[in-house]
Amino acid sequence: MKDKDTYKVTFFHPQATRIEAHKGRDLLSCAVEAGVHINSSCGGDGVCGRCKVIIKKGQVKTEPSGRISLKERRKGYVLACQTTVHSDVEVKVPPESRLDLDKISEQDAKLLRLKGMYSQAVDVEKGKRIIEEDLFKHSPLATKLYLELPPPDLGDTTSDLERLYRGVRKTSNIPILQTGLTNIKRLGRLFRESEWKVTVLLGKRNGTVEIVAVEPGDTSEKNFGIALDIGTTTVSGQLVNLNTKEILGTKATHNKQASFGSDVITRIVYASERDGLEKLHHAVIDNVNAIIEELVKEEKINLNDINGIMCAGNTTMLHLLLRVDPKFIRREPYVSTANFVPVIRAAETGIKVNPRGLLACVPGVSTYVGGDITAGVLACGLERADKLTMLIDVGTNGEIVLGNREWMVSCAASAGPAFEGSGVKCGMRATNGAIQRVEIDKSNKVKVSTIGNAKPRGICGSGYIDCLAELFRRGIIDRNGKFAKGKEFVLVPKKDAAVTRNIVITEADIDNLKRSKGAIYAACAVLLKKLKLDFKDIEQFYIAGGFGTYLDIDKAITIGLLPDLQRERFTFIGNSSLVGAREILLSYEAKTEAEEIAKKMTYIELSVEPSYMDEYVSALFFPHTDLSRFPTLQTKTR
Amino acid sequence: MKDKDTYKVTFFHPQATRIEAHKGRDLLSCAVEAGVHINSSCGGDGVCGRCKVIIKKGQVKTEPSGRISLKERRKGYVLACQTTVHSDVEVKVPPESRLDLDKISEQDAKLLRLKGMYSQAVDVEKGKRIIEEDLFKHSPLATKLYLELPPPDLGDTTSDLERLYRGVRKTSNIPILQTGLTNIKRLGRLFRESEWKVTVLLGKRNGTVEIVAVEPGDTSEKNFGIALDIGTTTVSGQLVNLNTKEILGTKATHNKQASFGSDVITRIVYASERDGLEKLHHAVIDNVNAIIEELVKEEKINLNDINGIMCAGNTTMLHLLLRVDPKFIRREPYVSTANFVPVIRAAETGIKVNPRGLLACVPGVSTYVGGDITAGVLACGLERADKLTMLIDVGTNGEIVLGNREWMVSCAASAGPAFEGSGVKCGMRATNGAIQRVEIDKSNKVKVSTIGNAKPRGICGSGYIDCLAELFRRGIIDRNGKFAKGKEFVLVPKKDAAVTRNIVITEADIDNLKRSKGAIYAACAVLLKKLKLDFKDIEQFYIAGGFGTYLDIDKAITIGLLPDLQRERFTFIGNSSLVGAREILLSYEAKTEAEEIAKKMTYIELSVEPSYMDEYVSALFFPHTDLSRFPTLQTKTR
Repeated sequence: MKDKDTYKVTFFHPQATRIEAHKGRDLLSCAVEAGVHINSSCGGDGVCGRCKVIIKKGQVKTEPSGRISLKERRKGYVLACQTTVHSDVEVKVPPESRLDLDKISEQDAKLLRLKGMYSQAVDVEKGKRIIEEDLFKHSPLATKLYLELPPPDLGDTTSDLERLYRGVRKTSNIPILQTGLTNIKRLGRLFRESEWKVTVLLGKRNGTVEIVAVEPGDTSEKNFGIALDIGTTTVSGQLVNLNTKEILGTKATHNKQASFGSDVITRIVYASERDGLEKLHHAVIDNVNAIIEELVKEEKINLNDINGIMCAGNTTMLHLLLRVDPKFIRREPYVSTANFVPVIRAAETGIKVNPRGLLACVPGVSTYVGGDITAGVLACGLERADKLTMLIDVGTNGEIVLGNREWMVSCAASAGPAFEGSGVKCGMRATNGAIQRVEIDKSNKVKVSTIGNAKPRGICGSGYIDCLAELFRRGIIDRNGKFAKGKEFVLVPKKDAAVTRNIVITEADIDNLKRSKGAIYAACAVLLKKLKLDFKDIEQFYIAGGFGTYLDIDKAITIGLLPDLQRERFTFIGNSSLVGAREILLSYEAKTEAEEIAKKMTYIELSVEPSYMDEYVSALFFPHTDLSRFPTLQTKTR
Repeated sequence: MKDKDTYKVTFFHPQATRIEAHKGRDLLSCAVEAGVHINSSCGGDGVCGRCKVIIKKGQVKTEPSGRISLKERRKGYVLACQTTVHSDVEVKVPPESRLDLDKISEQDAKLLRLKGMYSQAVDVEKGKRIIEEDLFKHSPLATKLYLELPPPDLGDTTSDLERLYRGVRKTSNIPILQTGLTNIKRLGRLFRESEWKVTVLLGKRNGTVEIVAVEPGDTSEKNFGIALDIGTTTVSGQLVNLNTKEILGTKATHNKQASFGSDVITRIVYASERDGLEKLHHAVIDNVNAIIEELVKEEKINLNDINGIMCAGNTTMLHLLLRVDPKFIRREPYVSTANFVPVIRAAETGIKVNPRGLLACVPGVSTYVGGDITAGVLACGLERADKLTMLIDVGTNGEIVLGNREWMVSCAASAGPAFEGSGVKCGMRATNGAIQRVEIDKSNKVKVSTIGNAKPRGICGSGYIDCLAELFRRGIIDRNGKFAKGKEFVLVPKKDAAVTRNIVITEADIDNLKRSKGAIYAACAVLLKKLKLDFKDIEQFYIAGGFGTYLDIDKAITIGLLPDLQRERFTFIGNSSLVGAREILLSYEAKTEAEEIAKKMTYIELSVEPSYMDEYVSALFFPHTDLSRFPTLQTKTR
């Protein structure tokens, strides 16, 4: 049965899309729900005048606006964000109001969109959970509060705004409560139309609480958030129910910025070119929007109900996400514009969720150790560890953190994206069909297993580690990574693959992988030496990265990616940046702890360490030039 | 000699206007300084895309923007707010970017602009200062801080934003410091171009401090503010140096909204009509902009250096200023949308000062006792008084406050604008040429004195009070206000006046004035009766309003506007709303005290008091029906 206060809203853009909307709902949020993309850059404040639509039929109430000319007004033009529904309505979206971002996507689609971009990512959650479930108090970036306010009478003529504040403060102790003019303008009508039953969306902003939006009726159950990990090569997103902490889905995709350069430095250079910064910014925003759209579609969630976003990422990626020029990052003395970014509205970046929804960034340590590492430290609990702990995050940059509850130092090494499946011939992200385990028997017969047990499509990071270790163990490649014969090795012949070619590993691939593992091992070694410590002092060793669901520690040691320590000291923790971002999205306590981590951690610049280059060159062998560093392998491989 | 870092910026709109600008200055603020009105609704955030200009010549740096199409970009279009000056430049302002407000002004100019609108207001400051000079600690709404930041080096790679925060925090203890993405985006280039010497504009926002803007070089001396009193009939503004507390000028003008209705109720009704709210809002914003423009022109101050505005006004006027629908104010139970308005950007209302400058409102008590009364209480120190004190503010509404440091009650009476010189035949505001003192000798010869000793142009409030008292004393009018003969009395014949007619007072004028004074006296009487007090219990009596520079207390008692108490209990304090607004603009302590006043004060609705109508009717005589209430007059007039 149709609710008497629910109306049909039909958008023509030009094809018809219809949704049901509660009386008094504004047309901009209706359009977001309907998947109709309308321009809006001010987050529904009514100031940008970009969300013009034409009312063809039905009753609406609209705030007068100087953005609509008299001529337009006569034609039925209104601002979608300033217009509410009061009957079934038909709305035309004129071409000038359709979203710019879409145009960019359409133009660049062929160039930029990679196949398989939006496939289901492997759930990093299935791995070991390191920190306790309820370590941090549940207090998400955005919360909802349903209020049945007492209507005013002659004995209580408190103003609408103070009545709202009083209602909010009844439930919790909030010293500084803020809101903006946009919400205030709507209160009078909203309260009376909804008979004083409203849901308040509250956001945590830098030590204060903002009344982000006020909605008619009880919408308190609809409160979702997104945790993001913006990597140089891979962008990952996770949809979370902010009320229940439930994880609803995870997606990953190649960072579309890769078309403009594969690493951080080439992107910074590109950002200085004409329109470069704009293009890089749009590319990653397009990634994020696509991930979010897929996630909400699968879960049948309304985009308007995504109220908070927490972004982890390296410092350059966060600059580009926010469209802040990263130019000074690569100029001595290597300074970023902001490591601690204040909470903003997601709409300010072009991310399409609730137009008033908030976006926060995990704080970073330095130019080359970003919020992704802070999030990773939090996810594995390094900052609370009694034991000496090392965390390595293997991505396009390899970052290393060493420390415990007393102190933390970090460094970064340019590892390249080989272990993320990029820059290697048959590389792919860790999704269905990716080879993640490889065994080669004495007769050189290969046995592979793939993620999801699908037909093989390519090789992900953990597959490459296994493959290198097996090739080396069977003597197919030498310590230098050269084949005894030929220039490549076939893992899966075309006939058994889901792709129309053999799945192979080449000598060039091995070179790339060797440089990646060498860079990371060398960075660990130099960091330890600088602190007058040794690998054997490390009591806990966490490995993070998008390798796959599974990482064979033994094989990672065999190739010299990891040091030769007792195996039980190692734990593979998957995408710890995304896990940390989610913790911080769900808890203000975790956010505070992340800030403390970022402030406390010392950064060591490896490029000025004279011993780094020697260590790197020595590590360009399997497992290492100095075999005495890998005593258990010597026994095995002899 | 020309500074090497200063360039000429010429705007064609279409006539040429040229200013000098420091290297790196943005074009939007250049345009504001040049008096070239360019659209902008987002306060320079680069999101509204309305400040498009065309670079015809010269070098600029511009942030890429999706608001500029490729076609436009090729033609030299840029967003003024996102573009900085790097040589002499010539800028064309296309018609679509010229300010809407101007168009409205031009269209409505004939209808709305009143003659003498922008004449110098009489300085209310020349009157008695009630509260001590330095009662409240100097801490204005907006402050400036010049910083010479230590440039980063390899040993100190703190990010730009944290470096700025560190610099700001060195000088003062600020727990919550905030800023927005717009400022962050500019920091990298700004710091390096200005060689780490910058001026930070800090704003106080609801318990937090905002970095409002960052400017190159030392501009710390340029920090001005505006105190506003938005009355139903009169709008007054005062320019203040926020650093030195110096008052630089005061202007007053008729509220242009008067064309749409002379009192609060008719304006609220008008606001419900099509475009009504928009028209009322534009009218008062136009008033405010005109006052500010005149003030800065006289003092040769740049509009960009107006960084803070503090508005006092009755509740309806503040709603209209903010473009908040006042509709529910006149519906039972008479509730306003907000009595405590959060600090916003002045640009959000359309007031043209520094695009990022802040605007705050003095908190109000209730729907009919607004921020103007809170400001007035603060200005006369009623909330700190040991003695029982009454404050009456005679405006279009007459508001009365009674109390001391322990308690405060207030009420409002619809007085009408007669004492503001409106609705009376030869009425005028208290500006040059207004008759403010009148004496009539035994032979009915009239002697007048005017403000500024100018040739008489009309009669202001204090002139009408004198005139009524003298007419009554000389028996020219009776206790009922009727002339013994004729229907009017000539104060100044045409030949002696600066206007082309006799300056007269008519029986209709006297009726209006009688109703005004009757409403105020009756309200005072009912309020006292309700509290079981009597006029004689009042130990201090403050009279506020725009009567003139001078008010003859004896004569105000003679006509029954004021009660018959010992004369030394009365003090005339002029426009106390403006004085209070200025105190609050200049001191956060005063702002806190104003909030306490507004919270503490009780409001009594007179319309539901059965005795009010009797009291009102009894007060429609000179001085009153009950002569025993005016014992000293009985002696005198007998």
